[in-house]
Amino acid sequence: MASDTISFARGAPSLDIVDVEGLRDAATRAFTNDPGGATAYGTSIGYVPLRRWIAEQHGVDEAQVLVTNGSMQADAFLFATVVSAGDAVVVEKPTYDRTLLNLRGLGADVRAVHLQTDGIDVDALAELVESGTVPKLAHVIPNFQNPAGYTLSQDKRGALLALAARKDFLIFEDDPYRHIRFKGEDLPTMLEQDASGTVVYASSFSKTVCPGIRVGYLVGPADLIARIAKLATNTYISPNMVAQSIVYEFCVSGAIDGAIATVKSALAERVATLDAALAEHLPEARYTLPEGGYFMWLELPEGTDVDALLAAANERGVQFVKGTDFLLEGGENALRLAYSGVTNDRIDEGVRRLADAYRSLAAAPAPA
Amino acid sequence: MASDTISFARGAPSLDIVDVEGLRDAATRAFTNDPGGATAYGTSIGYVPLRRWIAEQHGVDEAQVLVTNGSMQADAFLFATVVSAGDAVVVEKPTYDRTLLNLRGLGADVRAVHLQTDGIDVDALAELVESGTVPKLAHVIPNFQNPAGYTLSQDKRGALLALAARKDFLIFEDDPYRHIRFKGEDLPTMLEQDASGTVVYASSFSKTVCPGIRVGYLVGPADLIARIAKLATNTYISPNMVAQSIVYEFCVSGAIDGAIATVKSALAERVATLDAALAEHLPEARYTLPEGGYFMWLELPEGTDVDALLAAANERGVQFVKGTDFLLEGGENALRLAYSGVTNDRIDEGVRRLADAYRSLAAAPAPA
Repeated sequence: MASDTISFARGAPSLDIVDVEGLRDAATRAFTNDPGGATAYGTSIGYVPLRRWIAEQHGVDEAQVLVTNGSMQADAFLFATVVSAGDAVVVEKPTYDRTLLNLRGLGADVRAVHLQTDGIDVDALAELVESGTVPKLAHVIPNFQNPAGYTLSQDKRGALLALAARKDFLIFEDDPYRHIRFKGEDLPTMLEQDASGTVVYASSFSKTVCPGIRVGYLVGPADLIARIAKLATNTYISPNMVAQSIVYEFCVSGAIDGAIATVKSALAERVATLDAALAEHLPEARYTLPEGGYFMWLELPEGTDVDALLAAANERGVQFVKGTDFLLEGGENALRLAYSGVTNDRIDEGVRRLADAYRSLAAAPAPA
Repeated sequence: MASDTISFARGAPSLDIVDVEGLRDAATRAFTNDPGGATAYGTSIGYVPLRRWIAEQHGVDEAQVLVTNGSMQADAFLFATVVSAGDAVVVEKPTYDRTLLNLRGLGADVRAVHLQTDGIDVDALAELVESGTVPKLAHVIPNFQNPAGYTLSQDKRGALLALAARKDFLIFEDDPYRHIRFKGEDLPTMLEQDASGTVVYASSFSKTVCPGIRVGYLVGPADLIARIAKLATNTYISPNMVAQSIVYEFCVSGAIDGAIATVKSALAERVATLDAALAEHLPEARYTLPEGGYFMWLELPEGTDVDALLAAANERGVQFVKGTDFLLEGGENALRLAYSGVTNDRIDEGVRRLADAYRSLAAAPAPA
């Protein structure tokens, strides 16, 4: 890739919005304050003080929390524990590509339910369930969904909880972006509204501390968490204690609040710039402005060939992920723009290149 | 457990032999010298400078190295990639309990080959192979084996390599203790003597940096490493970049050499103390003095009930792991003592308690 390539492809923060100094200080404190805890093997539940801090944040018992090496590893543990080959599972359509891959890898019967701008189509899900396909779990990314950027409304959260309780399936609330809301009001998690133990919640510090620290976690019913902890022990003895003790120091010092404020203000600015640039250079694109998170989903006119668009874009030094990567079928005229990794001063140029790539397709002669 | 319990159970270093200051300094340098590399997602191959450093240490191409979250995760990736249910695999008898567990979890046909004081019984392995049971891989811990503390002789390394090359199976050389030799001469790894790509090598920084850092690695044929890297990507995107960049700084600064020297001199002293204490308090025990590593294997007179011994030991405030935990069958009169986690001043007292527990059994009336 060209050295000045602008990548809207990766859901990761640019370095300017990572609190490197805060992390360095947190690392110094971790080795100073708890050298034994940071350097020894822990157990698979994670670094005990961080586990306690997370439990307090969510108002749950510590026994309901498992801290892992990133939340994707948490997902993998959960899926390996509750999903067997042939089991029905529900995902959003579109959804995070790696979730799809992992579930298919397990041989799950993956049912994709349409994602609307206010979240998963709960009526369609209810219909599926009532018709006899009760999933083992429904995977939902409630806030600023990856890849669409949409957020599940409070009404739908309630409806989903009621359906899961009545039909006895798990809601897997996959919520790494929640704290990166830069517009509108926070909505309560389904976890905190759950009266019947149907929610397993996952989150991570990738978006609030940094991705390289690889710390994520699960919150769920204590018995299920205990089963997953056993699998985690057999997989890696314990997760990274150095990293988790650094995260702990970063959190309790309050550095995390400053870090989140930095990320939110930068991302709000980028979305505004992206919106203006699209209006100017690519008015054909349809999209809903995200109120938080890393992603915006773009739909181009019907008939757009996203494979060809990506090739043309790469030639022009701009990258994105194709809509088709997030769907079992469809998405040929859609794409995901991650603005998390592109500094504000590069966004207009990136959209200019994308628009140029799009025009090159429209101008190309139809195949003979 | 009582607050003054002496634990010979866990293969982990006591805090006094961990270079906490060196780690703190390495962390500061990691965030200062390469903030982008330390904080961003990497890829599943690991932190690139550390991967390169490891490749140089082993004199192999970088493409042959995968750096993981601890070597147990590396084992799990390797097994998941090459072992299917029903496949024959060879392990040492006794061997590391978690390896046994993982292989059995995969449904492998686990064949245990007797471990002698100079390593796995290669003649018995050859007989097994010649009789038609060619394993997918043979798992061997060549130096200061866990749990026995024995080391594979150079003659047997050569014989094993020749057998694997001729019969086309993998040797999985699991070698985390190599650098912790405090007596005798280093032996060349099978990896470096391998002319035909039959060796996959694993090691870790748990014993030379600290276990809480959770950094391990695999070295093997580039095509196999590439397949495992793909599985790693789908499991956790990338391993811990913060931890791996700290390890890298710890290594290139030379701090690791000082750390290894500290560990070696402490462990040599502990083994001498343990030997003297056993001679004094428990002369019934038979053992071979390890020349490195963390473990000593103790055999007590035939008929000793290690379950009862463990219970009596725990009552007296001393812990160990039962021999039966490392064997598919047998080990009832054996146990593993890990001296890595017990400071020198506690060893005599620990052995005194163990001897007292043993005498309590001998004195007990036989069951009616």
